[in-house]
Amino acid sequence: MSRIAYVNGRYLPHAAAGVSIDDRAFLFGDGVYEGLEVRGGAIVDLPRHLARLRRSLDLVRLSAPIGFEALGFVLREVVARNRVSDGFLYMQVSRGAAPRDHAFPTRPTKPGLVVTAQSFDRIARAKRFSDGVAVITRPDERWAHPHIKTLQLLPNVLAKQAARERGAFECWFVDKAGFVTEGASTNAWIVTHDGALVTRQADDAILRGVTRTTLLDAIAAAGRRVEERPFSLGEAYGAAEAFFSSATTIATPVVQIDGRTIGDGRPGPVTRALLESFHRHAMA
Amino acid sequence: MSRIAYVNGRYLPHAAAGVSIDDRAFLFGDGVYEGLEVRGGAIVDLPRHLARLRRSLDLVRLSAPIGFEALGFVLREVVARNRVSDGFLYMQVSRGAAPRDHAFPTRPTKPGLVVTAQSFDRIARAKRFSDGVAVITRPDERWAHPHIKTLQLLPNVLAKQAARERGAFECWFVDKAGFVTEGASTNAWIVTHDGALVTRQADDAILRGVTRTTLLDAIAAAGRRVEERPFSLGEAYGAAEAFFSSATTIATPVVQIDGRTIGDGRPGPVTRALLESFHRHAMA
Repeated sequence: MSRIAYVNGRYLPHAAAGVSIDDRAFLFGDGVYEGLEVRGGAIVDLPRHLARLRRSLDLVRLSAPIGFEALGFVLREVVARNRVSDGFLYMQVSRGAAPRDHAFPTRPTKPGLVVTAQSFDRIARAKRFSDGVAVITRPDERWAHPHIKTLQLLPNVLAKQAARERGAFECWFVDKAGFVTEGASTNAWIVTHDGALVTRQADDAILRGVTRTTLLDAIAAAGRRVEERPFSLGEAYGAAEAFFSSATTIATPVVQIDGRTIGDGRPGPVTRALLESFHRHAMA
Repeated sequence: MSRIAYVNGRYLPHAAAGVSIDDRAFLFGDGVYEGLEVRGGAIVDLPRHLARLRRSLDLVRLSAPIGFEALGFVLREVVARNRVSDGFLYMQVSRGAAPRDHAFPTRPTKPGLVVTAQSFDRIARAKRFSDGVAVITRPDERWAHPHIKTLQLLPNVLAKQAARERGAFECWFVDKAGFVTEGASTNAWIVTHDGALVTRQADDAILRGVTRTTLLDAIAAAGRRVEERPFSLGEAYGAAEAFFSSATTIATPVVQIDGRTIGDGRPGPVTRALLESFHRHAMA
């Protein structure tokens, strides 16, 4: 079955779907996006993703291309047309197509909207959950507003490539003070030896992950202690457990950071319990 | 006459020209670009632009989509097909189209190449040269590598829009120490009261402008003194003259910064002389 994409009002074969060479996402990275999990054909945490999209649009002064009710319909339609049971749903909003000029288009320009979906590679994903993965670290060299989910992703691209070349799955960024901010496409977490979960407070240095927020619900429900504060790379190296979160990775165990083994080198019990309980909170 | 664009090997009507929704420039801002001036049908400073493109490609680990001799041919062909006499030539290279994944495509993927051209609005441009323009300033919030000419341009977009909304043409970025780095799409210059030209050294904080380099040639030929060093916003406010440079703006006089009048509020003699002599050096 060939994939179907929604592009500016039309459902098209993905392989043939295109946008104008004047689209401002293409020319300037002038757009925002959301990535969502599909589980059993249902969209996980949709209201929180839509709320975050609204904030991203507001922060870069973009208007919504269609109403949010219609957007919800399009998202479900793209899932259905691609027959995705467990997979990844992607939507991107750009400032539309207009003659190249840095400042916003002066003529009324309809924002661009693209929605795509694809099924997970279930075997590879299950293996990451069961075995854990390695993480490398790099200085955080992103712009000053990573808390907005924009297309300014080249530093993330270069970090993810560096990770792959070193046999790792993710790269954590480290700020000038030596504290971990977040991963190239995930939020970063550790578990201390006395059982507390630590993740950076959602300040301007990180994206407020939807999965991060839902994990905080799951952790509260489990009666565990959370510390929302920066943690250093040294503290991460010595942690009992580590993991990262995002819509597609949920709570993926980290068993190695910069070549150093975390805990006993296997996914820890706190991370495994979170991974198992997550969808009870996300799909509630 | 309708515009023609070169897109991945084909010359197409600009209005109908598109790229894949999987193009990595569209999804991640994963690409680099060059903007060139066309004057009297000729491409200005082409060798220096090609040399900089080579550096940009190397720094983000992108390969050239076609050989540079062929690229020169395409550039001239796009100018000719659009019958541009005086205008702007644009080329963009992306990491190509591949299923969305931050890290580089694992299957061989041809880099994307788009080339477009358009004529200047000559009247508006001549007015900027003769009357000068206003500049505003903002904190420099870009990523750590603005010396690479990438598509990470959302901070520049927001800065240019802020400038327009305040009746200015450009926005200069100011680093944490209070020094001007460069403009959102130009290099920044001042002229001191003893006649020296000051522009920031081409370190990692700024793009090494091709026009900046050619202006340095023109200034040397005129026997004027240059200081390549950071200058503060305070020094700029009190300068004898100010201007900014880029392929399309050459040496555009700045007569106001943050609402403060520069010099006597009219384009200064040093800037005017540079503007007049520039093309003798650029087209040599």
